[in-house]
Amino acid sequence: MATLYQNRYGKHRVRVLRVMQEEDKHKVCELEADVLLTGELEASYLSADNTSIVPTDTVKNTVHALAHDFLGPCRTSFAKVLGEHFLQKYTHLDGVFVELRERRWDPMFVGGEAHPHSFVAQGNGEWIARGEFHRGKPAVLSAGLRNHLVMKTTGSGFEGYNVCELTTLPPTKDRILATRMTAEWRFGATAEDFLATDESFLKCAYPVFAERYSPSVQRTLFEIGEAFLDAEQSVERVELKMPNVHFLGLDLSKLGRPGQTRVFLPTDEPHGEIEAVVIR
Amino acid sequence: MATLYQNRYGKHRVRVLRVMQEEDKHKVCELEADVLLTGELEASYLSADNTSIVPTDTVKNTVHALAHDFLGPCRTSFAKVLGEHFLQKYTHLDGVFVELRERRWDPMFVGGEAHPHSFVAQGNGEWIARGEFHRGKPAVLSAGLRNHLVMKTTGSGFEGYNVCELTTLPPTKDRILATRMTAEWRFGATAEDFLATDESFLKCAYPVFAERYSPSVQRTLFEIGEAFLDAEQSVERVELKMPNVHFLGLDLSKLGRPGQTRVFLPTDEPHGEIEAVVIR
Amino acid sequence: MATLYQNRYGKHRVRVLRVMQEEDKHKVCELEADVLLTGELEASYLSADNTSIVPTDTVKNTVHALAHDFLGPCRTSFAKVLGEHFLQKYTHLDGVFVELRERRWDPMFVGGEAHPHSFVAQGNGEWIARGEFHRGKPAVLSAGLRNHLVMKTTGSGFEGYNVCELTTLPPTKDRILATRMTAEWRFGATAEDFLATDESFLKCAYPVFAERYSPSVQRTLFEIGEAFLDAEQSVERVELKMPNVHFLGLDLSKLGRPGQTRVFLPTDEPHGEIEAVVIR
Amino acid sequence: MATLYQNRYGKHRVRVLRVMQEEDKHKVCELEADVLLTGELEASYLSADNTSIVPTDTVKNTVHALAHDFLGPCRTSFAKVLGEHFLQKYTHLDGVFVELRERRWDPMFVGGEAHPHSFVAQGNGEWIARGEFHRGKPAVLSAGLRNHLVMKTTGSGFEGYNVCELTTLPPTKDRILATRMTAEWRFGATAEDFLATDESFLKCAYPVFAERYSPSVQRTLFEIGEAFLDAEQSVERVELKMPNVHFLGLDLSKLGRPGQTRVFLPTDEPHGEIEAVVIR
Repeated sequence: MATLYQNRYGKHRVRVLRVMQEEDKHKVCELEADVLLTGELEASYLSADNTSIVPTDTVKNTVHALAHDFLGPCRTSFAKVLGEHFLQKYTHLDGVFVELRERRWDPMFVGGEAHPHSFVAQGNGEWIARGEFHRGKPAVLSAGLRNHLVMKTTGSGFEGYNVCELTTLPPTKDRILATRMTAEWRFGATAEDFLATDESFLKCAYPVFAERYSPSVQRTLFEIGEAFLDAEQSVERVELKMPNVHFLGLDLSKLGRPGQTRVFLPTDEPHGEIEAVVIR
Repeated sequence: MATLYQNRYGKHRVRVLRVMQEEDKHKVCELEADVLLTGELEASYLSADNTSIVPTDTVKNTVHALAHDFLGPCRTSFAKVLGEHFLQKYTHLDGVFVELRERRWDPMFVGGEAHPHSFVAQGNGEWIARGEFHRGKPAVLSAGLRNHLVMKTTGSGFEGYNVCELTTLPPTKDRILATRMTAEWRFGATAEDFLATDESFLKCAYPVFAERYSPSVQRTLFEIGEAFLDAEQSVERVELKMPNVHFLGLDLSKLGRPGQTRVFLPTDEPHGEIEAVVIR
Repeated sequence: MATLYQNRYGKHRVRVLRVMQEEDKHKVCELEADVLLTGELEASYLSADNTSIVPTDTVKNTVHALAHDFLGPCRTSFAKVLGEHFLQKYTHLDGVFVELRERRWDPMFVGGEAHPHSFVAQGNGEWIARGEFHRGKPAVLSAGLRNHLVMKTTGSGFEGYNVCELTTLPPTKDRILATRMTAEWRFGATAEDFLATDESFLKCAYPVFAERYSPSVQRTLFEIGEAFLDAEQSVERVELKMPNVHFLGLDLSKLGRPGQTRVFLPTDEPHGEIEAVVIR
Repeated sequence: MATLYQNRYGKHRVRVLRVMQEEDKHKVCELEADVLLTGELEASYLSADNTSIVPTDTVKNTVHALAHDFLGPCRTSFAKVLGEHFLQKYTHLDGVFVELRERRWDPMFVGGEAHPHSFVAQGNGEWIARGEFHRGKPAVLSAGLRNHLVMKTTGSGFEGYNVCELTTLPPTKDRILATRMTAEWRFGATAEDFLATDESFLKCAYPVFAERYSPSVQRTLFEIGEAFLDAEQSVERVELKMPNVHFLGLDLSKLGRPGQTRVFLPTDEPHGEIEAVVIR
């Protein structure tokens, strides 16, 4: 005896590039889309009845067709187009979950000028948009940046923490702080200029990270969230994940170089993981 | 003005191998652990006060020390040890989230026999355990297998689905079905023999996958969940994710080989994604 | 002033799955192919003259068409088919380099028996074949296994090595030895049964690895090569790469568990790298 | 009967970060190093005699100690330091192969200015240096950039190529050209300013890529090599690999959008692979 409790299905990793031409200047938007659907789909699980299934191949076709018709420079607006389309077109569906991952292409600089149709991929992090759409409710739109790697070589410490018999970490007033930062912010109902918010995030985060002393990742994370909410009225909340990218001091005393502070060991694992949601 | 709404922190990717010796026979358990903590931690975000922070370095030390003392062949039991330790030891914490990922090592067969201290890594999927521990509540323990890749070359079809003007997929009574299956099951409060459940899962899933005609991934997913719940009374619910690994029929008609059904194009993207939770 | 010194081009990562039906039993061979071509191609580099270029799209089509016509269970035979095809068909080409990577699918066992059309992916390593074809010379065919991960928890040591003031490693008579083994063997001109050699490799390597004491990775590597050449007269030489997968003893003395030998730290980096070519 | 034909060993993936302080301004250099050694090492393969082996752990220690003493902003200079050290110190060695991979950190811009001790990781490609050192011969030093992803949305075509019955590609005068470019250049004996050459490469490559019509990847590759050799007298040869990153025109005619040229399908596989060495 078994019961279907929850279900959803759709297409993941649908890729598309849109080229936009404005006179002689091109812009591009390259996305990878996940679209998941919920609704009256039980029959497809409980029997061989597939009538409720919009094939995932059709979901892929839809992303391509709507990208053709509507995709511009703003991935978040396109998330909205996608979500609304599925709810409107298929009356037996009641929910749509969209995630878009953007590979950002910057203009290539040639002789000091942005070239009109040549581009260089950004490589440090991935821009995302997410939307949740439920029939009869307002859409919930989010955007963000994943895995953006930054470092400061001083202006950070960690001391005064809980000490027990399993503690071996020494306190420090001066350490390297590096993090592969992920931020995802949720827009309020009246938000419109999603693209401007992308830029705003780094404009808020960089000064906090660079200029303020960091007593802990926790504190720096909260200050970044606070600065961003202060600057962006269209944003209701921001979730920040700031995993440590540890650069450990190398003990070279057995190699005849005691007390050195010049060289460090970069490590990927294990790593601290600090996560919080900051709201108004 | 900003408010801390949610927060948690801890250590990710803490690795450990435990060797167990029984007379001349060795067993091993290799894990990668994530441990996240919640509790009275706000001060560390809202100020430079770190007194509530058990350093993530201590979390790592704890995993190593407890692995020394308690880790045996069963990762799920160890998840429980970890979760209970943190709640018991640090009274200002109220929640612990543990995820363990196991790289399974099978005995190496030499001359038809399992060698007592040589091992070969399983490579098809990753065994996991998860635990959520909240002060004053029963622990919630789960286990599972991620990304286990299986295929059947016939005995699968897909037809009778929703058709609209964006549908281009032709119906079929005979196709290749492949999936990178993920299953995560939640144990009831009285469950004890976690390791036996690992084995049971594949014993339930394989016959359903291999022997029954599949009219859709949805249907096959539910049947696997049903068979597993029927067999394992200790399991309360199972979440299954069965992303398609598509092998597309190659149209070689322009290459002088029309109507061929021998060769297929393996593709990683885009891929169908089917997810459901099955309960009793 | 610049001169074209060397050049080659082709298609990488051409994927194909071949299903073979023998009465009610299916077999599959899934490959990813790289094909690179050399010959009279200079004009395409030194000018806009493309007449010598067989498009890489045609190379892809060729892999698909020849897979349709000729691919069976043996990837190495197919490497030969591919190489000979390009030299025969395009007279301005003089060299072809083929690499095939096979994802091996084992039969799924259901109720103790191999199911006739269901399969489980091997995950531990990748089987390869390589061929170099030059007009007027005999083809050079190789096969092998990449990244096959094995471990022994005793029966291995390392001592008596060069010691200098930068040495901190302590000698040991008992350590864990693990390696992500890669082997690539070159066939002699009369070799025929390539598939049998795949099986033979592990049959030779496992007993050496498991049963003999290992004084160094170097020694074990050579002994594996020797055993394989002794067993397989069709093989002329074998290149072995045995990177260490280090499991470091954890020093838990500061955590109140001095001298422990139960738990180890798995590490991916840095790692020892031992490579050699063994011939008759 | 087996013979040791070739062998080398060493340590791979040794990581290190060096922080350089100049008054209040910091610079960093983060490297991952591979070091392989050759010499009179046969005994370690042919017997249990390890006396010739400098442990790979010592190799790691050496990288750390020499990074402490000598690593500055220039990875290529450090490759030379490493190679010369091993040959000088261990007389039974006769060859050293060094590869360094640099994760480049750019200054973080805050309020329009480069912050003195905060950094942002470059993400588009990896800077490398390589050195081969043989006793009694001049060192061979190379540097380069791997996997730098660029695109142009027009100004590229492909036509006039070899056509046969397996050709299905249509010729075009206007297509998207994208490539994940790898360049590795070898320095002449008198080269000194290795860092300047890094900058020079992109200054040479970008205008060729952006401003000239590309009739083929082959032609564009050669023109980039030619421009770089013209500009950099210290460079003797450059090897270029320019795999296509294909953006395929999507045929949306079945979806009611025939003849469209706005949206494209990004694909990772299969991909064209074009490689050449350009010398003076």
